[in-house]
Amino acid sequence: MRGFLIVGNEAFTEPFNLSDLPGAGRMDILCRCVSQALFLSHSIRKRVEVYLLLLGEPDPPKAIRIISDELRRMSPDERNIGGHLRKAVSFKASKDWMEVNSGVYVARKTLRDLLVEVSESYEIYYLREDGKDIREEVTKMKNPLFVLGDHIGVRRAEEDVILEFSSGVLSVSGLSLMAEQCVAIVNYELDRTNI
Amino acid sequence: MRGFLIVGNEAFTEPFNLSDLPGAGRMDILCRCVSQALFLSHSIRKRVEVYLLLLGEPDPPKAIRIISDELRRMSPDERNIGGHLRKAVSFKASKDWMEVNSGVYVARKTLRDLLVEVSESYEIYYLREDGKDIREEVTKMKNPLFVLGDHIGVRRAEEDVILEFSSGVLSVSGLSLMAEQCVAIVNYELDRTNI
Repeated sequence: MRGFLIVGNEAFTEPFNLSDLPGAGRMDILCRCVSQALFLSHSIRKRVEVYLLLLGEPDPPKAIRIISDELRRMSPDERNIGGHLRKAVSFKASKDWMEVNSGVYVARKTLRDLLVEVSESYEIYYLREDGKDIREEVTKMKNPLFVLGDHIGVRRAEEDVILEFSSGVLSVSGLSLMAEQCVAIVNYELDRTNI
Repeated sequence: MRGFLIVGNEAFTEPFNLSDLPGAGRMDILCRCVSQALFLSHSIRKRVEVYLLLLGEPDPPKAIRIISDELRRMSPDERNIGGHLRKAVSFKASKDWMEVNSGVYVARKTLRDLLVEVSESYEIYYLREDGKDIREEVTKMKNPLFVLGDHIGVRRAEEDVILEFSSGVLSVSGLSLMAEQCVAIVNYELDRTNI
């Protein structure tokens, strides 16, 4: 198994306009992360989970969980994925995961709640530009889950929580890449080791 | 310099609905390829060119050229890039490149026209699943341009033309990845060698 947890610092927690995903607290970035994490050409990866933490107005925090093996009727374009996320945030979130579409769940969870939960099944790695080169570490991983931020990165308060749970801080590039590019590269490096 | 040429087998050659990019001959794929080729977090790469070959109805072929160093007012989301492409195909294309926005050009060119043109400045590589591992070849490259197909791949007639011009057939993964993932990985491998 592999997982990704992306922090959407300003991602809207109420239904948003699908024709303006950037205006919804950069929901476009989260959509692209989901796409890059889950999709292959004409198929969906097996055994991948994506967690999105939405911290934007008006009702934060909300968390969305997407389980690749249960997913139906999602396609890799931003607008389609945005439609799934829009539906998810339209529900009143409670402490427990509620399924809003096949393989798509929503709940009210803080970053700490999420990390406590995923640390039961995953080794957690934090992706940050100044981390260790992922290529040196990737062969040692077992059920890794990667935490990363959106265009804003991860704020100090959240970073402190992530570091409590993480097995290491890793970098995928000397350049400052977009979040979804990091996701694509992590998948690529893991694929090469057959994890 | 580095370049990408993506073949859009069914990509519309007339203005299309920005709220249905997949329905426009999978224009969503071309938009994501442009995004992955050109954008970093909060900036645009230097010295990258993207060529899109649109072979869909009603007025093929049309080619779009995007030059990163000249680009203004483009953002990395599909809809924004789609808007630029939509504008480009709304013009009557002629043999020579016509600038439709800063850094975005359109012309009527066949695949052969394009390859003749880019082969003056680039070494051409063809990305195909059964090619040689890019990681073994990447350190030897100088001004590479990568040709790849969309969800349909590259049809036999086009493939024959590409092979006439290409210095090699390369693969980025044992899995069948989406085109934009290939672009992101090529950039990543090139970045690691500082090309």
